[in-house]
Amino acid sequence: MPPPVSSNDPSSKTANATWGGRFAEGPSAIMGAINASIGFDRKMWRQDIRGSLAHAAMLAHVGVISADDEVAIRDGLAAIAAEIEAGRFEFSDALEDIHMNIEARLTERIGEAGKRLHTGRSRNDQVALDVRLWVRDAIDGLSGQIRDVMRAMADRAAEHAGTVMPGFTHLQPAQPVTFGHHMLAYVEMLSRDLSRFADCRARMNESPLGAAALAGTGFPIDRHMTAKALGFDGPMRNSLDAVASRDFAAEFLFACAMCGTHLSRLAEEIVIWTNPYFGFVKLSDRFTTGSSIMPQKRNPDAAELVRGKTGRLHGALHGMLTVIKGLALTYFKDMQEDKEGVFDAAETLTLCLAAMAGMVRDMQPEVGRLATAAGAGYSTATDLADWLVRSLKMPFRDAHHVTGALVAKAEGRNLDLAGLTIGEMQAVEPRITEDVFNVLSVAASVRSRTSFGGTAPDNVTRMAAEWQEKLA
Amino acid sequence: MPPPVSSNDPSSKTANATWGGRFAEGPSAIMGAINASIGFDRKMWRQDIRGSLAHAAMLAHVGVISADDEVAIRDGLAAIAAEIEAGRFEFSDALEDIHMNIEARLTERIGEAGKRLHTGRSRNDQVALDVRLWVRDAIDGLSGQIRDVMRAMADRAAEHAGTVMPGFTHLQPAQPVTFGHHMLAYVEMLSRDLSRFADCRARMNESPLGAAALAGTGFPIDRHMTAKALGFDGPMRNSLDAVASRDFAAEFLFACAMCGTHLSRLAEEIVIWTNPYFGFVKLSDRFTTGSSIMPQKRNPDAAELVRGKTGRLHGALHGMLTVIKGLALTYFKDMQEDKEGVFDAAETLTLCLAAMAGMVRDMQPEVGRLATAAGAGYSTATDLADWLVRSLKMPFRDAHHVTGALVAKAEGRNLDLAGLTIGEMQAVEPRITEDVFNVLSVAASVRSRTSFGGTAPDNVTRMAAEWQEKLA
Amino acid sequence: MPPPVSSNDPSSKTANATWGGRFAEGPSAIMGAINASIGFDRKMWRQDIRGSLAHAAMLAHVGVISADDEVAIRDGLAAIAAEIEAGRFEFSDALEDIHMNIEARLTERIGEAGKRLHTGRSRNDQVALDVRLWVRDAIDGLSGQIRDVMRAMADRAAEHAGTVMPGFTHLQPAQPVTFGHHMLAYVEMLSRDLSRFADCRARMNESPLGAAALAGTGFPIDRHMTAKALGFDGPMRNSLDAVASRDFAAEFLFACAMCGTHLSRLAEEIVIWTNPYFGFVKLSDRFTTGSSIMPQKRNPDAAELVRGKTGRLHGALHGMLTVIKGLALTYFKDMQEDKEGVFDAAETLTLCLAAMAGMVRDMQPEVGRLATAAGAGYSTATDLADWLVRSLKMPFRDAHHVTGALVAKAEGRNLDLAGLTIGEMQAVEPRITEDVFNVLSVAASVRSRTSFGGTAPDNVTRMAAEWQEKLA
Amino acid sequence: MPPPVSSNDPSSKTANATWGGRFAEGPSAIMGAINASIGFDRKMWRQDIRGSLAHAAMLAHVGVISADDEVAIRDGLAAIAAEIEAGRFEFSDALEDIHMNIEARLTERIGEAGKRLHTGRSRNDQVALDVRLWVRDAIDGLSGQIRDVMRAMADRAAEHAGTVMPGFTHLQPAQPVTFGHHMLAYVEMLSRDLSRFADCRARMNESPLGAAALAGTGFPIDRHMTAKALGFDGPMRNSLDAVASRDFAAEFLFACAMCGTHLSRLAEEIVIWTNPYFGFVKLSDRFTTGSSIMPQKRNPDAAELVRGKTGRLHGALHGMLTVIKGLALTYFKDMQEDKEGVFDAAETLTLCLAAMAGMVRDMQPEVGRLATAAGAGYSTATDLADWLVRSLKMPFRDAHHVTGALVAKAEGRNLDLAGLTIGEMQAVEPRITEDVFNVLSVAASVRSRTSFGGTAPDNVTRMAAEWQEKLA
Repeated sequence: MPPPVSSNDPSSKTANATWGGRFAEGPSAIMGAINASIGFDRKMWRQDIRGSLAHAAMLAHVGVISADDEVAIRDGLAAIAAEIEAGRFEFSDALEDIHMNIEARLTERIGEAGKRLHTGRSRNDQVALDVRLWVRDAIDGLSGQIRDVMRAMADRAAEHAGTVMPGFTHLQPAQPVTFGHHMLAYVEMLSRDLSRFADCRARMNESPLGAAALAGTGFPIDRHMTAKALGFDGPMRNSLDAVASRDFAAEFLFACAMCGTHLSRLAEEIVIWTNPYFGFVKLSDRFTTGSSIMPQKRNPDAAELVRGKTGRLHGALHGMLTVIKGLALTYFKDMQEDKEGVFDAAETLTLCLAAMAGMVRDMQPEVGRLATAAGAGYSTATDLADWLVRSLKMPFRDAHHVTGALVAKAEGRNLDLAGLTIGEMQAVEPRITEDVFNVLSVAASVRSRTSFGGTAPDNVTRMAAEWQEKLA
Repeated sequence: MPPPVSSNDPSSKTANATWGGRFAEGPSAIMGAINASIGFDRKMWRQDIRGSLAHAAMLAHVGVISADDEVAIRDGLAAIAAEIEAGRFEFSDALEDIHMNIEARLTERIGEAGKRLHTGRSRNDQVALDVRLWVRDAIDGLSGQIRDVMRAMADRAAEHAGTVMPGFTHLQPAQPVTFGHHMLAYVEMLSRDLSRFADCRARMNESPLGAAALAGTGFPIDRHMTAKALGFDGPMRNSLDAVASRDFAAEFLFACAMCGTHLSRLAEEIVIWTNPYFGFVKLSDRFTTGSSIMPQKRNPDAAELVRGKTGRLHGALHGMLTVIKGLALTYFKDMQEDKEGVFDAAETLTLCLAAMAGMVRDMQPEVGRLATAAGAGYSTATDLADWLVRSLKMPFRDAHHVTGALVAKAEGRNLDLAGLTIGEMQAVEPRITEDVFNVLSVAASVRSRTSFGGTAPDNVTRMAAEWQEKLA
Repeated sequence: MPPPVSSNDPSSKTANATWGGRFAEGPSAIMGAINASIGFDRKMWRQDIRGSLAHAAMLAHVGVISADDEVAIRDGLAAIAAEIEAGRFEFSDALEDIHMNIEARLTERIGEAGKRLHTGRSRNDQVALDVRLWVRDAIDGLSGQIRDVMRAMADRAAEHAGTVMPGFTHLQPAQPVTFGHHMLAYVEMLSRDLSRFADCRARMNESPLGAAALAGTGFPIDRHMTAKALGFDGPMRNSLDAVASRDFAAEFLFACAMCGTHLSRLAEEIVIWTNPYFGFVKLSDRFTTGSSIMPQKRNPDAAELVRGKTGRLHGALHGMLTVIKGLALTYFKDMQEDKEGVFDAAETLTLCLAAMAGMVRDMQPEVGRLATAAGAGYSTATDLADWLVRSLKMPFRDAHHVTGALVAKAEGRNLDLAGLTIGEMQAVEPRITEDVFNVLSVAASVRSRTSFGGTAPDNVTRMAAEWQEKLA
Repeated sequence: MPPPVSSNDPSSKTANATWGGRFAEGPSAIMGAINASIGFDRKMWRQDIRGSLAHAAMLAHVGVISADDEVAIRDGLAAIAAEIEAGRFEFSDALEDIHMNIEARLTERIGEAGKRLHTGRSRNDQVALDVRLWVRDAIDGLSGQIRDVMRAMADRAAEHAGTVMPGFTHLQPAQPVTFGHHMLAYVEMLSRDLSRFADCRARMNESPLGAAALAGTGFPIDRHMTAKALGFDGPMRNSLDAVASRDFAAEFLFACAMCGTHLSRLAEEIVIWTNPYFGFVKLSDRFTTGSSIMPQKRNPDAAELVRGKTGRLHGALHGMLTVIKGLALTYFKDMQEDKEGVFDAAETLTLCLAAMAGMVRDMQPEVGRLATAAGAGYSTATDLADWLVRSLKMPFRDAHHVTGALVAKAEGRNLDLAGLTIGEMQAVEPRITEDVFNVLSVAASVRSRTSFGGTAPDNVTRMAAEWQEKLA
């Protein structure tokens, strides 16, 4: 019996022959693949239609086309939108891109008026407009999702403002903090991501429409009008820049990469926290996968994928910067590469944000286990040192030495710091008083960290409430 | 009339609501999106079936399954392959990946025997195997294409071994070379790319199959047998490494990125050469796009896209390295990100190679224009300096100074070097003889560069022939 | 005679032995190399001292240290600053970093008071503070340089508002524009880079000081006071975030990479423009290097290096994102990698900006050559099409066809469009009138592009003046 | 008292003024900074001298220079080498690079003969040669270090061939493996890194010397002779390629990045393993840093830095690819960027390898703790399933179901699998016999994994011995 998949044998000539097989028919197939962007730019159909509606309204307003033409164009585009929504629109590779697909269909539907739509614009400013509108929409959508994740975190912070846990440096327990405080650290990071998206949006919110091919146009178009109609702050100030620049896309991708990187940090923590030796949090099987034969094994797939997908976001950013770098003005076909990376990054980040929102809401801190861990390892040694400075006026560096001696003594006897008697302590430093025991518990430690932004539960409660209000 | 696309208005709540809308139904939708890789890993169906065929044959050989079972499995898989080829196979998201899709269908078709197939293997080694086979196939296909581009270049080199053109440094004409010589420079670069792919293939050509989940297995499997059946040099030597490593994918992506970078250099040159002020080569409209109203405008779209798509290849490489970096052993869901970048890079490079092969065959050097350009700008000044060293035994650095004086004299009188009289030359350096005029022409210059690898037409002809033979 | 450099022979064992030789003495040498950051973080000495001054003043204000101690600290730090400025400070590897070097020296100079300085802070918030201050200073310095480049460009734009040149797409001449307009395109790009730096500065302008090790502190410190003293808008709101986050550094690197990418585009153009076949601009030998024997060869080294150094900026960004990705909270030694990339990027961009400012001021557009080029290739065909739409009310797509026919006619007879007679034109489209000749010249073409942001010289003059005013 | 560091106040004009201050003196300072590579390329002085020695010997051999000249050159270069070794050589910025620094000094020392050295070569092939030699030396050095790390790992593997520990997927314990097996997984990864460096070396081991400026030369040079003298396999075959290509540097950087990525994976594991909840290994204070007041806190700084420095290696690779991408032939100043990234990456990887070799030798597996962990979580459930398949001939998928039922029963009663009685087992599957208990222990589990590459201690011992022998 012949093997069913012999054509794939790498040693056979067939493999090589079929590999680039789709291009075997020659240049036209290659150029088809190079020029046809309709496979991905159809995602921008809404943006393309919105741009054309605004352009047509303006052309009518300034008298370049008649009011009747504008009505015909508007109705025609509405009908086309309906066709696309309904999945009845036939996208054509031969028409290459979404712009020509829609324009050709429009002329098919409404005749002459359709041929007038392209007056005073060019594919160069049209595509710049569509990508810009798409990115702006993506920013709005992603921002909503980021706020949702922040909200989930602030809620958990409020709930666990006093839940103690170890704070780590170097993945070694260092000082007690609270789970709520830890959540709020991520709220802060995400709030900066949110503001990065907002800044990106504000900076890019200028309309390229009317730059035409590259030089502007002699038609009496009103770029301020179309800009306003499309929700822009105004038109871009230089036509060459309008068609040649894609820094907005790179900045969007950086914002995505940075946000993904932050999510990736929490994802790493979730992977570690759900490890059984940590056992800091439990994720339900809504966000883990398991094994029917190993019931304890709860693989935090969602967290791992958030972490892994960050690589893809980084890659998209670097791909875009590489494309732009060293490109003369104005438009080059290289710039067609601006879209797929942007689309993929937006979709990737959407999934990561949805997964993280879900996990944050789902995860259950193991309160008892966290408390035990928080108290281990002389975690309040710093509190002792601070007490020596505060109460005995020792210089900080000297207090540090005394603390070291006390910890060594306790460790030698296998005790906690609070397990030493006052006499044993005074043998090291005679001025120590019973008051010192007030700072040696985990609860006292976190309670004392009342400096602004410190982990004291009252701080955390107040800050969580502030965020809940801001995000409501 | 309501606007047809209002749902996309970024300022409306609808936009935000619908953005992550597909995840609105909650965790199951999110985990579905995270876990279902069937959308892209179905590309590996041939590899998956090949792996299962080899595994089943081995299981039968060592007696873990019966000969009847193996026949049933083989027939079942053949039938499934036929279904997929014919587009009749129904891929199921619920079954998550290509492995479970095929195994489930197999059991559906052949019953008990299907349930025995997975003995002594695991999804972890299965997926490692499939990706590896896919990459190996891709290397074979891409290597064939690289050889095709090299062949095209060697042919053009043979054809234009004596066609002079300016050699550039800093995009400033420096010394005459030949067009054939220039083509062969790229043949050399691509030959290294080819050998990088070959090295990558050789290094990765070991079978992970039989590593099972991560620890190996107690079944008396014969990993050497499956390795051989699948065309591997042998089995991998460590089961943890077998399921945890993806350096082969990163190396593949580097080879793609490097090859794309080389193509991108020639693409840049084609963009520059087809600029009308250069006018060094003509590309037919099979590889350019134009404008009906600007007939001279021949946009080298294919070259630009090759250059632009390199960014994407760089991005894929960096995405992969980022994913792997800092990942503990063995399998993590992060590693699911190994596939899409690899698939996309292979497809991207395939297109770029097909486009470049086409362009190299299509382009017509403008021989006259190249010759004129080759002679401009005192391009044979180095030849004069070398003559002074050779004939007058001047130290090189001194000869350099004399040449500078002669060029300055010629330039002052707006002449070529050959335009100076022997007397004028002797006024600068009395020992110069008429023999000097033998080295001042472009033809003489290139003819003289006979050092190994130099641009002398005889060298080029010989080297082009060598490559044509090697690549035949 | 023994070869002088035999120890470097790669085939000798010596080579291998000496390669990692500095680590041959074992772990202490390795840990020394890993922990000692003083080799690069000494760059932050000013920032470190500023931070300590603010911290000491606050500690005195809230009564944690005495007024006398604060005076001693202030004087001690002033003396140390003077020592460093004068090159008399001895940096010690054993003291590892700039913080301990300065603190140790302070205690050496002023005794007990020096030991009190570290109260209520930690190396974790101290290093976070220093890097932040350094980056903020770098932003201020780079922003000044960007404005300088913009100013140079705006000046050249004002000077050449009416200097026509070809506008390109695909490096093919498309439509006439003006040199001033081209300059202003870059002013726009750089203005966005400037605003990106400003946004980055605003977002990062919060003080981490007082976060202490990670949990905040029980000392009654006033973080608002130190924040204000150091020019921050306020203290960071979460102590974990304060010590764990480096997104400000990544954002800074993105802003550098994006700005470098924009400079790289102009650098690419300068390389192309100074090629003799273009001959669009001349750079003096202040920004080029030459060859004594090839006087025409003026290598645009400065432009090439700007273009090349962009790769380094991209690399620094990628490195930083990779470091942060997947790092749990809070501090890890990995984060020591935040500094060198930042320092190098700032220095690289400084050089690139200085070089670009110099080149923009230096370069001389070849006005005549640009004008000739601007008129070649039926560059006003679009103007003709627009005239048909405007004057004859032809639909745009139909006008396009008529223009194509006219261009074909002119080309067939080897004429410019303006070379056709009115009769020849009317043979194609009878309604054409003599008025058409008013739009066929380059001057008329650019003059007509009066749409906002278009290339009309009046537009350019006005916009250049606006920028000059803003940047004054 | 004036603040000691006021000049650094970001709000003062001074800050901006001083930022780019070094360039304030104008173009010459800028071009100085751009052109002077002597600050970093002096690292290549050995390579430069070796190249010149080989070139001079060849020139004498073919009669281009006299035997006396060659002796003078050889002696002169030996003296210069001695000067540099002794730190007595004065490097000059004005002479820009290492090549001119050495040549100028040579002529200063030996006169006329020095001026003849540069015959038949150019700075373009000279720099290409030096970088190539430097990279080749780096590969040799790094390869020795990689082998050293592998040796350390193989030794630990031999020592701990039978030390059981949990094998993980998703950081969840999955199946028992041995510590030795885990070590060998990294030996395999590093062996591929080693072979990547070897492939890179073999591919780049061709001499560019004699390509001259770009076109070759008319002098009767013998490129095969210099190639051989310098340890190359032969001369490069195309002069343009020889001066224009830097793919060898990119490939070197990829090999560094990949190797660093592998080290980073183990570094991540060490960070996790030394966390107290894991407590899998202990690192001595030779590779950790601690806190005098928190004695348990042993920060694995060396491991963290290895992980962090990988970002830098990725960045260097990305920077280089970006520089090369889209660069026309042949030499551009952009390519000066090939050196610093390469130097830094080599130095970074050297440090990482030294640190990892040290840590691998230093770390002590906590054998008891690892054994306990290895047995937890029904880690031998797979062994039970396999027993059912083997002994009862159940189809694998059915055996999986039965195992699930047995685990659930054990879990419900809070027992290990081996804690169930035979009767309890038979209640689920009547055919189970006492023999099953032979596979339920951790020791039995790992012992059974005898498939090639499996974790069975005998396998590990044998494989470790093989590696020890290969690496001896």
